[in-house]
Amino acid sequence: MSKKIVIIGAVAAGPKAASRLKRLRPDWEVTMVDRDSLISYGGCGIPYYVSGDVSDESELRATSFHVIRDADFFAHSKGVRVLTRTQAVAIDREKKQVLVRNLDSNAEERLAYDYLMLATGAGPIELPIPGMRLDGVFTIADLHKAIEIKTRIAQGKVSRAVVIGGGAIGIEMAEALTDLWGIETTLLELAPQLLPKLVDRHFAAMLAKHLADKGVAVFTRESATELLDDGQGRVCGVKTTRRALEADLVIVAAGVRPRSELAKAAGLAVAPWGGIRVNQRLQTTDPDIYAAGDCIAVTNLITGRESYAPLGSLANREGRVAADNMAGIPSLFSGVCGSFIMKAFERCIAATGLTWEAALAEGFAADYALTSPSDRAHFFPDQAVVILQLVFDRRSRRVLGLQAFGMMNDSISARVDTAAALIAKGGTIEDFSLVEMAYAPPFSSAIDSLNAAAHVAENMCDHRLRRVDLDRFLAWMEDMSLEPAWAVLDLRHPQESAAYVEKYGEDRWVALEYGQVRRRHHELSPNTTYIILCNAGTRSYEVQVFLDHLGAIDSLVLCGGLNAVSRLGVGWLLK
Amino acid sequence: MSKKIVIIGAVAAGPKAASRLKRLRPDWEVTMVDRDSLISYGGCGIPYYVSGDVSDESELRATSFHVIRDADFFAHSKGVRVLTRTQAVAIDREKKQVLVRNLDSNAEERLAYDYLMLATGAGPIELPIPGMRLDGVFTIADLHKAIEIKTRIAQGKVSRAVVIGGGAIGIEMAEALTDLWGIETTLLELAPQLLPKLVDRHFAAMLAKHLADKGVAVFTRESATELLDDGQGRVCGVKTTRRALEADLVIVAAGVRPRSELAKAAGLAVAPWGGIRVNQRLQTTDPDIYAAGDCIAVTNLITGRESYAPLGSLANREGRVAADNMAGIPSLFSGVCGSFIMKAFERCIAATGLTWEAALAEGFAADYALTSPSDRAHFFPDQAVVILQLVFDRRSRRVLGLQAFGMMNDSISARVDTAAALIAKGGTIEDFSLVEMAYAPPFSSAIDSLNAAAHVAENMCDHRLRRVDLDRFLAWMEDMSLEPAWAVLDLRHPQESAAYVEKYGEDRWVALEYGQVRRRHHELSPNTTYIILCNAGTRSYEVQVFLDHLGAIDSLVLCGGLNAVSRLGVGWLLK
Repeated sequence: MSKKIVIIGAVAAGPKAASRLKRLRPDWEVTMVDRDSLISYGGCGIPYYVSGDVSDESELRATSFHVIRDADFFAHSKGVRVLTRTQAVAIDREKKQVLVRNLDSNAEERLAYDYLMLATGAGPIELPIPGMRLDGVFTIADLHKAIEIKTRIAQGKVSRAVVIGGGAIGIEMAEALTDLWGIETTLLELAPQLLPKLVDRHFAAMLAKHLADKGVAVFTRESATELLDDGQGRVCGVKTTRRALEADLVIVAAGVRPRSELAKAAGLAVAPWGGIRVNQRLQTTDPDIYAAGDCIAVTNLITGRESYAPLGSLANREGRVAADNMAGIPSLFSGVCGSFIMKAFERCIAATGLTWEAALAEGFAADYALTSPSDRAHFFPDQAVVILQLVFDRRSRRVLGLQAFGMMNDSISARVDTAAALIAKGGTIEDFSLVEMAYAPPFSSAIDSLNAAAHVAENMCDHRLRRVDLDRFLAWMEDMSLEPAWAVLDLRHPQESAAYVEKYGEDRWVALEYGQVRRRHHELSPNTTYIILCNAGTRSYEVQVFLDHLGAIDSLVLCGGLNAVSRLGVGWLLK
Repeated sequence: MSKKIVIIGAVAAGPKAASRLKRLRPDWEVTMVDRDSLISYGGCGIPYYVSGDVSDESELRATSFHVIRDADFFAHSKGVRVLTRTQAVAIDREKKQVLVRNLDSNAEERLAYDYLMLATGAGPIELPIPGMRLDGVFTIADLHKAIEIKTRIAQGKVSRAVVIGGGAIGIEMAEALTDLWGIETTLLELAPQLLPKLVDRHFAAMLAKHLADKGVAVFTRESATELLDDGQGRVCGVKTTRRALEADLVIVAAGVRPRSELAKAAGLAVAPWGGIRVNQRLQTTDPDIYAAGDCIAVTNLITGRESYAPLGSLANREGRVAADNMAGIPSLFSGVCGSFIMKAFERCIAATGLTWEAALAEGFAADYALTSPSDRAHFFPDQAVVILQLVFDRRSRRVLGLQAFGMMNDSISARVDTAAALIAKGGTIEDFSLVEMAYAPPFSSAIDSLNAAAHVAENMCDHRLRRVDLDRFLAWMEDMSLEPAWAVLDLRHPQESAAYVEKYGEDRWVALEYGQVRRRHHELSPNTTYIILCNAGTRSYEVQVFLDHLGAIDSLVLCGGLNAVSRLGVGWLLK
């Protein structure tokens, strides 16, 4: 028997569900409504459209076979009716009807449904500061805004920009403006670090250093307090908690929040922060009403808690699961690891699962293994160092998360995606230690970086490897009086260590090459705690084990070694 | 209490186990013996050394911090004694001693052990044909051979080469010779396809086409019958079952077999094909004797059967597991998926798990989903088509394997490694359908290629998608009388389909653009079986579902579409 399906929202989860439904149930009537005239676009591609990597906005709305996904396309190719410029005003759950209003004609209509799906997405968080309505101030709310931003840039109207918000979209926009258009760009982030909650602070620091190297002025712990008017209603600057910045373009990328007013008004359960609550079959508290995409609350697979993961990729997965269930095919969406990846100029940064700080806050016995191996065989020409951090629980040995920072290529995808697959299955350190990574020198190492990170974690859990806290070490480097008993034991080649010995003095920076330790360990002092370091940390661990065996020498390992420290942009290191 | 460990073989598993053991048990005496003077090298890097990508052989024997791993290195840095140029002659299991002989002095010595580890590796299979001892004929048995090959090439002594064996090493060597040295190279493979057993034949065909495009002459179903003598003991050509080839260099890469004579002579269990049998703790049938690396039989995690997986990456994993167990840390090596990846000029080919043919032979209800999506967002500038094939069991819906062919970058690693992690855990199509792939347009699609392949598999299992057999379709393209009732239904843009319609005639090649099907389906004939095709196969599936719903039209989908077919090098397609 044919059923009537109404889907509110036609960007990602909506179109996916509509198309899938028509394939599963060709005789059902599927109607999609959206406030916008432009639908079914790749919102995550907006920064690449603004940068010029994607030359025309229509490419973001086109299929892989270059047909624009508009209402006609859905009607003729998918058999789905789409009402654009149409606002869903209210849901009558008793009568199973949605009241919709055309935004041009104001005509209202009641759409009957057997199943309703909410794919209302998310809206940008607007800042409660003066000037948000000035000309030249944009949120990345939809494709129209993106088109307007790019038009202004292309017309040469923008020479200085301020991006407010150091999340993924803010950073991608900052790159787009700086890299391809040469716009003098400042990035402001209220939190003490970029990508707050997505990565731990030392990963954010590596990213911030690279952005700065590429010409973006990055200010963290700094928020905009006012957007300044040039007297003619156009923005001319940004006042922050610390300074005044000139700007002819301001992009507010301060995060998004679920659009759930309609759900709430209909009496459906909504989390306090706005996410529509759904079960694993993506039904709301009304079983005939489904929800998917950026408007819902999802379960974090590691914490088991309600969380928010607004991503086009998840919206598509959820849309498909919702369609399956409406069509009578039992299908579960159990939750997310929270995988994230981004390009930042010539680097890639990515994460999945929990950060160390988040894991501690959740009550895990959390620790992390920080490593800095090669991203492929170390003898292969275009190999490069990648910084990987495995977050784990010392008690259960469960892996809780992975973070990575390296060159802009797909090698980090391989490690993060594999990690997410294992984490979702409750993978332990031992699973990571043995997971089979396809090996040939152009792609990986005989001991893959992901396996190696697990080895470090295992050695930490088994009390063979004791690491120094990175922050404490960095603080000591600035003020050695903080830890009077510490000295560095530098295992690198004398050519590498010489400058450091000269700067810090041979009492506090002891150079003893790795291959000499077994012959010259008696030169070390039993009254000193040696911070053992090398480039990657592997030699350091080996020496710690050896010194422990001797018994008299106390030591801590600098995990990740100078490879990691140098990427933090620690300017004082050899200043 | 200190124990004595003897390890036979010092290339991959041996050094890994020795080093790990000294870290776990610094007071134990670890001795490694090897017949060779060169030890602990990255054998998988040999093709890149020959090509010149790696400039000096010593780089293959160096640590990431540029120290050569020789006997001195192991003595001073690891505390491991290494006897090079030393052959293990016999094992006395009663007395727990190994008799070793120095190959230079012929001096013999008995090494006592508490635990013995066999890491004797694999040896190249030599062909039973005349001429194998001629000057200029090489197997890739060790680094010495590689050095000699490269020396000859660098001296300009090689202008024509024949590589016998179309496995990974043979192909990598053929690339090395052709690409960087411009040597006229022929690749011979006895089997009907390259990479036999590693990939299904249409993947091998795509690879063969690319090799041919790059100038390698590829002959399959063809074996060498004689290596020809120039009269002075130097090779001057190769006689095959079909032709005679001139050659001043012949590389025999006909596979490897485990070196297990020593184990066999000691009465340890060895598989008929030569693999030393071990349990999951990597103990041989003598619990005090461990074995790891290319000399052992491993369990295939999908079939549960004994199999052979000689790979440096697995050797390292196994070496670590063996060391753990010797040291008293329980550690299991449960088996392998058999992941494999390689660079071939500008392409990457990879696989994990079972091929379709292998899965059928194993008795699975095996089928495959062949897809040809973009390797990242289709609107992102450097996106390219990747061919992915998911092999699955229709009954259990378990995923059995994945194969991929695409551009030379790391994107295939991401999919194959994620697949291997899931397959090892018994992952089903549904697991693959929802596995979380980190998404941003430079790295992936909103619906990742791996998820999309699972969607196709799901639609096949659920009888929504009926595919045409690729071979049958290709045969029909050559001779349409084979299937009198077939016609193509080409959904592509008229500009794409026009040439095909002209060539094959509008009765057998019906052009009906995707967006027109719902309006013009009545033009289709109920007496025809339509082979629906497009570029990737996704539109074709959608149209099949629609036609099935109408009820009167029979159809089959060309999975992977013309993207896949064109990569097969089907020259007749539009000739």
